[in-house]
Amino acid sequence: MTFTEALNAAWTRNNSLLCVGLDPERSRIPAHLQGKPEAIFEFCRQIVDATAPYACAFKPQIAYFAAHRAEDQLERLIAHIHADHPGLPVILDAKRGDIGSTAEQYAREAFERYRADAVTVNPYMGFDSLEPYLAHADKGVIVLCRTSNPGGSDLQFLDVDGKPLYQTVARLASGPWNTSGQIGLVVGATFPAEIATVRGIVGDMPLLIPGVGAQGGDVEATVKAGRTGNGTGMMINSSRAIIYAGRDEQFAAAAATAAQKTRDSINAYR
Amino acid sequence: MTFTEALNAAWTRNNSLLCVGLDPERSRIPAHLQGKPEAIFEFCRQIVDATAPYACAFKPQIAYFAAHRAEDQLERLIAHIHADHPGLPVILDAKRGDIGSTAEQYAREAFERYRADAVTVNPYMGFDSLEPYLAHADKGVIVLCRTSNPGGSDLQFLDVDGKPLYQTVARLASGPWNTSGQIGLVVGATFPAEIATVRGIVGDMPLLIPGVGAQGGDVEATVKAGRTGNGTGMMINSSRAIIYAGRDEQFAAAAATAAQKTRDSINAYR
Repeated sequence: MTFTEALNAAWTRNNSLLCVGLDPERSRIPAHLQGKPEAIFEFCRQIVDATAPYACAFKPQIAYFAAHRAEDQLERLIAHIHADHPGLPVILDAKRGDIGSTAEQYAREAFERYRADAVTVNPYMGFDSLEPYLAHADKGVIVLCRTSNPGGSDLQFLDVDGKPLYQTVARLASGPWNTSGQIGLVVGATFPAEIATVRGIVGDMPLLIPGVGAQGGDVEATVKAGRTGNGTGMMINSSRAIIYAGRDEQFAAAAATAAQKTRDSINAYR
Repeated sequence: MTFTEALNAAWTRNNSLLCVGLDPERSRIPAHLQGKPEAIFEFCRQIVDATAPYACAFKPQIAYFAAHRAEDQLERLIAHIHADHPGLPVILDAKRGDIGSTAEQYAREAFERYRADAVTVNPYMGFDSLEPYLAHADKGVIVLCRTSNPGGSDLQFLDVDGKPLYQTVARLASGPWNTSGQIGLVVGATFPAEIATVRGIVGDMPLLIPGVGAQGGDVEATVKAGRTGNGTGMMINSSRAIIYAGRDEQFAAAAATAAQKTRDSINAYR
C-alpha cells in the first residue's frame, strides 16, 4: 500500500484529518517517567496508543530524539506504531535537503532504518535533491512550501514573477517534480488564505498543515481553505496542544481527550 | 576561540584552504576494514590523521552515519579530531532547517552532542530558523546559498528583483541575519562566476565551497573568484577525490597525497 493509499484509508476509517505530532521535549515529559531508561519512547508510546483512534497519521520530529541520543527509541516507537496501529502512516519530520549521493543516505535513514511511510524535505536544493526519496516507490515525500513560523516569509514571500516564491514551489512540486504522485506539501495553518491559494494550485495533493493548537492557527479557516471536494486532503498537525495536554500520570488520557476534541472541531467544518 | 578565529588560525598554520569532506559510503570502505565493528570510524579516523597537515577543516556529512546507525562513531570521530588535531575546526554537514523549538534541538544535536564547531543549515524557513544556532556564541552557522548540484538552479536561480534568488540569500545572510558575525555561506565550485558575485556581496565572510574534485569544479577559477584580499576566506571542500583516492590498505597514504596535491593546487592561485 502506498503512503497516499494508507492516508486515504486512515482519513475514512478514523474519520479524522488530525495528524498527531510527536515532539517529546525531555523537560516536559511527566515526572513519573523522568529518569526511566526509555522515557522518551514510553511517553510517546502512551500518547500514540491513546490518540490512535482519533488520528489519521503520526509525525515524530527526529530532532527531539537526535538531540538526546535516542535514535533507538525513535526506531522502536515507529515499529510500535506499525505493529499496534497498522494502517496509520508515520511521517518522519526531518526536513532533509541535500544532493543525490547524500540524499540517498537520508532516504535510507528515513525509509529503511526508521521505516517511516513519508518524510518531510526541503526544496531549496531543487528536484534532484528529491529524486532519491521518490525512488522509494511506496513512500510519501512532503515538501516544505509555506511554513508557519514568522521567518517563513523571509524567502517564501519573495516576489517571483509577481507572486510569492512559495507559489512557485507549489507549482513545481505539483507539476514537473511530481513524476509519480508521491509528493505532498507543508503549508502552515497560520495563513489560511495561502492554504487556499496552494489548494488552488495543487489540486487534490495531500497537505500537511502544522500550526493549529499551540501555534494558534484557526481551525475553521484552515479546514475551509484546505479541504478537497470530498472533505479530506489534509493532515492537520497538532503536537504540543495534544501531547502536553496533561502533566501527571493521566497525561495519555488528557492527550486522547485533546485529540478527540481537535478531530471533532476539524470535522465540524469539513 | 570562536569558529571564525579557529578557521583563520588553521588557514595560516597549515597554509591551507582545503576542507576534507568525510562522506564514508559503506560500500567504498576498503576491504580490510569491512566487517569490523567500527569500520566507519576507523576509515575516517585514518583519513583524518593522514590529511590533517594539509587541511583547514574537516566536514563530516551526518547522513552517511545516520543511515547506518553509526551516530556513536560520528561522536567518536569528532572527539578524536578535537583531541588529536586541536585547532582544526569540524563542520557538521547536516543542512538542517526547522522552526525555533525544533531548531533548538538540532543546535543541541550539532553543538552539544557532536561538539561540532559549525553546522550547515538551510535558509528556506528564514531567520528565526537560524537564531537557535546563533545562540551558541562561539559556533559557526554556514547557510546554503548556491549549491553545486544541477537542481540547485530550480529555486536558487529564480528571478527576484532582477537577480537570482541566491543573491538575496547572500544579502540577507551577510546583512540583517549576521547579527553576531557567526554566519558563513555555501557556494558551489561548479559556478565560479557566482562565487565572485557572492564574494562581492558578502565581503570577507567565510565561504564553504564544495564541488572541486569528483564534482569537477575548476580550482583556478574557484580560488580566483572566492579569495579575499589576504588570499583566504574559503573552505574549499573535497570529499570523494580525497577519501577514495586509494582502495587498499594504503588508502590513508593515498588520501594524504591527494589532500596535499589539492592544497598545493589551491595555493598556486591564492
